[in-house]
Amino acid sequence: MAKIQTGKNNSKKDVIVKKAASLFKSKSYSASSMRELAEFVGVEASSLYNHIGSKSELLQEICFRTGNQFTEQIDKIKNEQRSNIEKIEAVIRFHIQTMAENFDEVYVSNHEWKHMDEPYLSDFLNIRRSYEKSLMLLIETGIEQKEIKPVNPYVAVLTILSAVRGIEFWQRSKKNVTLQVLENDMVNQLLNGIVK
Amino acid sequence: MAKIQTGKNNSKKDVIVKKAASLFKSKSYSASSMRELAEFVGVEASSLYNHIGSKSELLQEICFRTGNQFTEQIDKIKNEQRSNIEKIEAVIRFHIQTMAENFDEVYVSNHEWKHMDEPYLSDFLNIRRSYEKSLMLLIETGIEQKEIKPVNPYVAVLTILSAVRGIEFWQRSKKNVTLQVLENDMVNQLLNGIVK
Repeated sequence: MAKIQTGKNNSKKDVIVKKAASLFKSKSYSASSMRELAEFVGVEASSLYNHIGSKSELLQEICFRTGNQFTEQIDKIKNEQRSNIEKIEAVIRFHIQTMAENFDEVYVSNHEWKHMDEPYLSDFLNIRRSYEKSLMLLIETGIEQKEIKPVNPYVAVLTILSAVRGIEFWQRSKKNVTLQVLENDMVNQLLNGIVK
Repeated sequence: MAKIQTGKNNSKKDVIVKKAASLFKSKSYSASSMRELAEFVGVEASSLYNHIGSKSELLQEICFRTGNQFTEQIDKIKNEQRSNIEKIEAVIRFHIQTMAENFDEVYVSNHEWKHMDEPYLSDFLNIRRSYEKSLMLLIETGIEQKEIKPVNPYVAVLTILSAVRGIEFWQRSKKNVTLQVLENDMVNQLLNGIVK
């Protein structure tokens, strides 16, 4: 069989993790096997094990890469010199763009994280909890600084994160809605509403 | 074993369907058995079969009862003498209240519908598609009548339905957020935004 094809900026492990995300998304983590993954990557199963220890390690890679990517982004945004509303807008746009670019990875970390073993499971939940706290803090600071209405910050974060998560139902081709329209309209609705 | 306990307004079949929704939610449809359901209801398995034909029939009951409930409601609302915005608000509130009242049933029809066989699967998807179309029509009419900004109706419906679906992550006790606050704040954010 062929060698694992890599690009300039990704290692063989990156390629395997990306293919695993695609497989876990389409078949679910539980129903996927390393043998199928090897076939999907186009190599012998033994060759996979040169780069990755086990199926569960792949799930951890996917979930933690995604979780850390969002955490790094919100940490960067929250220290910028912008209004709180602009920061929240930047967070929402990052969610939508990342969903569009790394759809399989985000989907798997949203739906399959429960299958991780300890201590990874608890670590992952802590990452998610801190992320939600950071976003709540942006809302709270925005309320204090009179940029945001006196809403319940937990409900605002739940509404925002649920809406962006729903992009998994977006059928790009069928609905003739571009990423640009989706992103701008969703951001506007979540921040400014749809009432004229 | 005991008889199936029924209330004033629900039949034995209703009780079984409700217990099945609870079981399918906690264990998933695939991993649940009729034997477990019988234990959960507190009767012999043979007694279940007096009221229901099979596990797949239970899934159909749950999905179609939920789907029809939402369809009946939007059909009622769209014929009322109210502004389009008031109609959309009523639809969102109905979603949130129904999620809170019949959480297991809504959860199962959101997550487990894929396991239905044909022709039920296609029928169910048609019900969902018509529902989304009715909601899109309310948005479109609202735009025409200058009540709503010129948004993309598909994105507005995706944002609304994804946000209300996210209520499954609401942890009532932990976050100290009442249903009333959740409902009012989510409706307000989706219609009027959070920017001051």
